[in-house]
Amino acid sequence: MTITTLEGIVAYPVTPFLSNGSGIDEKAFRRVTDNLLRTDPAAIAFLGSAGESAYLTGDEWRQAAKLGVETVAGRVPVILGIGELTTAAAVAKARYAKDIGADMLMVIPVSYWKLTEAEIYGHFAAVAAATDLPIMAYNNPATSGVDMPPSLLVKLVRELDTVKFVKESSGDLNRMHAIRTLSNGEIPFYNGANHLALEALAAGASGWCTAAPNLLDDRPRILFEHMRKGRLGEARELFYRLLPLLRFIVVGGLPTTVKAGLRLRGLDVGDPRLPLLPLPEAQRHELEGYLEAIGVGAIEPQLLRCA
Amino acid sequence: MTITTLEGIVAYPVTPFLSNGSGIDEKAFRRVTDNLLRTDPAAIAFLGSAGESAYLTGDEWRQAAKLGVETVAGRVPVILGIGELTTAAAVAKARYAKDIGADMLMVIPVSYWKLTEAEIYGHFAAVAAATDLPIMAYNNPATSGVDMPPSLLVKLVRELDTVKFVKESSGDLNRMHAIRTLSNGEIPFYNGANHLALEALAAGASGWCTAAPNLLDDRPRILFEHMRKGRLGEARELFYRLLPLLRFIVVGGLPTTVKAGLRLRGLDVGDPRLPLLPLPEAQRHELEGYLEAIGVGAIEPQLLRCA
Amino acid sequence: MTITTLEGIVAYPVTPFLSNGSGIDEKAFRRVTDNLLRTDPAAIAFLGSAGESAYLTGDEWRQAAKLGVETVAGRVPVILGIGELTTAAAVAKARYAKDIGADMLMVIPVSYWKLTEAEIYGHFAAVAAATDLPIMAYNNPATSGVDMPPSLLVKLVRELDTVKFVKESSGDLNRMHAIRTLSNGEIPFYNGANHLALEALAAGASGWCTAAPNLLDDRPRILFEHMRKGRLGEARELFYRLLPLLRFIVVGGLPTTVKAGLRLRGLDVGDPRLPLLPLPEAQRHELEGYLEAIGVGAIEPQLLRCA
Amino acid sequence: MTITTLEGIVAYPVTPFLSNGSGIDEKAFRRVTDNLLRTDPAAIAFLGSAGESAYLTGDEWRQAAKLGVETVAGRVPVILGIGELTTAAAVAKARYAKDIGADMLMVIPVSYWKLTEAEIYGHFAAVAAATDLPIMAYNNPATSGVDMPPSLLVKLVRELDTVKFVKESSGDLNRMHAIRTLSNGEIPFYNGANHLALEALAAGASGWCTAAPNLLDDRPRILFEHMRKGRLGEARELFYRLLPLLRFIVVGGLPTTVKAGLRLRGLDVGDPRLPLLPLPEAQRHELEGYLEAIGVGAIEPQLLRCA
Repeated sequence: MTITTLEGIVAYPVTPFLSNGSGIDEKAFRRVTDNLLRTDPAAIAFLGSAGESAYLTGDEWRQAAKLGVETVAGRVPVILGIGELTTAAAVAKARYAKDIGADMLMVIPVSYWKLTEAEIYGHFAAVAAATDLPIMAYNNPATSGVDMPPSLLVKLVRELDTVKFVKESSGDLNRMHAIRTLSNGEIPFYNGANHLALEALAAGASGWCTAAPNLLDDRPRILFEHMRKGRLGEARELFYRLLPLLRFIVVGGLPTTVKAGLRLRGLDVGDPRLPLLPLPEAQRHELEGYLEAIGVGAIEPQLLRCA
Repeated sequence: MTITTLEGIVAYPVTPFLSNGSGIDEKAFRRVTDNLLRTDPAAIAFLGSAGESAYLTGDEWRQAAKLGVETVAGRVPVILGIGELTTAAAVAKARYAKDIGADMLMVIPVSYWKLTEAEIYGHFAAVAAATDLPIMAYNNPATSGVDMPPSLLVKLVRELDTVKFVKESSGDLNRMHAIRTLSNGEIPFYNGANHLALEALAAGASGWCTAAPNLLDDRPRILFEHMRKGRLGEARELFYRLLPLLRFIVVGGLPTTVKAGLRLRGLDVGDPRLPLLPLPEAQRHELEGYLEAIGVGAIEPQLLRCA
Repeated sequence: MTITTLEGIVAYPVTPFLSNGSGIDEKAFRRVTDNLLRTDPAAIAFLGSAGESAYLTGDEWRQAAKLGVETVAGRVPVILGIGELTTAAAVAKARYAKDIGADMLMVIPVSYWKLTEAEIYGHFAAVAAATDLPIMAYNNPATSGVDMPPSLLVKLVRELDTVKFVKESSGDLNRMHAIRTLSNGEIPFYNGANHLALEALAAGASGWCTAAPNLLDDRPRILFEHMRKGRLGEARELFYRLLPLLRFIVVGGLPTTVKAGLRLRGLDVGDPRLPLLPLPEAQRHELEGYLEAIGVGAIEPQLLRCA
Repeated sequence: MTITTLEGIVAYPVTPFLSNGSGIDEKAFRRVTDNLLRTDPAAIAFLGSAGESAYLTGDEWRQAAKLGVETVAGRVPVILGIGELTTAAAVAKARYAKDIGADMLMVIPVSYWKLTEAEIYGHFAAVAAATDLPIMAYNNPATSGVDMPPSLLVKLVRELDTVKFVKESSGDLNRMHAIRTLSNGEIPFYNGANHLALEALAAGASGWCTAAPNLLDDRPRILFEHMRKGRLGEARELFYRLLPLLRFIVVGGLPTTVKAGLRLRGLDVGDPRLPLLPLPEAQRHELEGYLEAIGVGAIEPQLLRCA
């Protein structure tokens, strides 16, 4: 399917590993995916920050990408995350994504040496030239070490035909203001900062890119609907109810906290990959408290298509 | 009048100086006040950051405070800003404010040497003990050098009887989230960050403390009304229309930019006090462009009661 | 005396207050001054950051300035600190300093509203024009809220005849590198960051502006001498021996910690002015430990001329 | 050889790529190495930040590591840099390094998700357990996204037998102070911040880890010798002469600037790997000016053993 618009929740699965840490747990992977599909997302984005993409080998990335496309099986658009230090590796993944039938790419440059704007631009241009898939330019300085200012993000969309969307995870709402202002409201931007979801939607974000549905089911989507329909009071109430958990998963790191939460919900997806450790006991209790306070229940296996 | 609730726009006048810089221009002061009263604010706050309080002598502060109370003459509540380095000076101003009939104090500690939480607490406790006036605890680290975390602000309200309100100007919405969460939504907080007005109201701010009505008339109040009534689309449209000017006055400094804007609108209030300089030519043109784009007109003298 | 060069330790006394906090303790003031003169400083600087200048009324500032000049009585040059929000107040103090016979001014702009470079320049130009006293431009963003980049500091010295020295307290050694490079090594700069004294001298600082001699007697001067004579090993050993105390007084705030330390040494100079509180018990013990480890003894009253 | 002490200059070669970007240029690699050996370094460290280690495939890393060991051929100790996101990959590289005869490992954890101290510790413990090679724990938050405080670095050395050295590249001298203080001067630390080389040596750094000898030949070593012998004046003069270039290579990124500089010196080592771009024309001229001002000449091919 060709994606031209995208509105609502873009859901991010974690990548489950086998218990010995040696590879991807395909069965759990399908379950995680199905669990997200139940929440009625606008799209599913595999191999993003939450998906521990940075910790996979090239072979594993391709395995997970393929499995993702197959599991979703056209039910919603599939987005694949590409976060690479070298342009060559990013281009190779883009081509692979096209080959296996992904619908969109989410591209984040990753730095060791600080990149100039010309270098970031060149990276996107090369990835964009590799396929005709639409691209979401993803800014997340805290994880990637690259901070793309609004002017650059707008330039990427304006000048590169297939770069069509922006995901902003810096947590600075002024960036969203600038993207909207610089583009006369024409460039759709998505919020990746869970703890500012309410305000980002107020500011006009077209959607919310989040791993939260793994733990919160359709509550993020309901928050989105409230805001779209001007039910500000309901949206605010719901947001503040979810906020402790949203903050917790941001502060504790998505793979670590979401994997712990899924296990608490009865869906064991293993642990994050070393050096990342499982969530410590004390924080697991804290997380359990948040889930209970919100009323999050167990994941019923029979509801998952792949069960 | 005893203020127990406060909702909407708290308007901040600048303090006009005579052309030779030697004292307060009382006639212009009254005009600035009347111009704000026309915008139907919930309250008027004299001698805040916008009022160049930090640049006045003690005598001038008392002169302006008295003049403010007299000019408003009970039409709306009068709030007086108290930002002092020493507790003794803050207490003396609080007593004076009570004597002349002010309705509320807005208190901001100012640092040269970094203050501990115990020192900040002691400062507020002493000012609170000096009168029975309600107090708004005001956090603005960029100007005052003191950054009060939400936990301390909530503690001040919880433990000091007359400290009832919080004004947050740090521009960090997480602070507002924390105030609401820590106080179970019971402590009213006000936004002092003009460039985040939309999102702060979305987050549940009870009002917007702003000098913007000097230049934008009742537009900030209309934005507030839109948000209160769930007209999110209209609010967002209006906010983005006002945003270039809101950002401009924050970045350029309120006294400098608002005084320049009032002069452009036909109400000459003199220049800010040295070392602050009048707005440079190029930026004055920029400001003029913003005012025109929004459709801000001249201030008609005949509409001012004191004209 | 006309100061054209200055090399070594510039010692900063605290300003003692009477026990009820209501005014300056003149007897203690003289003792503090004499205690510093015993350490053989290159100059004494009254009413700097350590001297709680920001917390004095105008009358108190003048009283302390006069008392300082009289107590030193020409034994070493006297520098007076001028840190004012308004240019008018700074100019008035400069004139007073000249009238009472001070030898040099140390000028730091203080901000509430962020100052542009033109505003800072204008402030210095006005103070420089007020007298013929040599001026040390003092940069201390953490306390004053004004951060003057090296390019501006060099410009002030180059263009304003009486601005001859720079004191850098930002703690960023790159600033010192830039001052030296931009001025071809011609502008003498002084270090105000106690915890980097060793490295600042290595980088070529002409001296060390410090309140440490109040507690460390001539040890800072000895460190300076070691460095001047290339005894790097001895300098390093001494520096690391003093470092815990140097860090402690920086982190805890100079007036608070130095006053506590002087009391521990038997010279009671009262407490800092509210909202600043006396050093808490636990930290007083910590300070006592540092003094003992260094071998700092009591201040013998009979050694003070004014005893 | 078993390294127990290390003092002086640790020289960092860049990794030359073939003109089409498709692989390592072995001939140029050997020349770069020989050029560094001419400068009489204490050790050579391949595959560090300057060596674009983060941009190599696993195969290329092993190829370069082997080539490095072979080229040095025991003339000085060989250190190999290991900067990996996963502990598994780091352990594998450590074993390979041991197998091929490297003398020491320089280990830097790299983050996508922020690491806790327990996670960092676990990473080092696993790498340390993999071989008996001595390890230098390397802190460089700007490139790796991981900031290890002095307390953690000291703990690593204290508790893990083979972790024996610390390299600090944060550019914060307080870190070096803390390492020395926390370890009673027993843990040798090395400076990785070129622009603070003078001060780091003053603070007691045992050596300077730097790519500067690629462009500055033995000047860094001479600076080190000056400082070791207490010739502070000479050291300072030399440092300020080198400083513009040292700053330039830090700000512009080591692979980009050092490769450009080597080409200017007649030793073509190709370009950095995309997305890194060759140094732009204007900056190349700037660099050329710095080299000329210092008197850096061409690299004579006949002086390189491998020529």
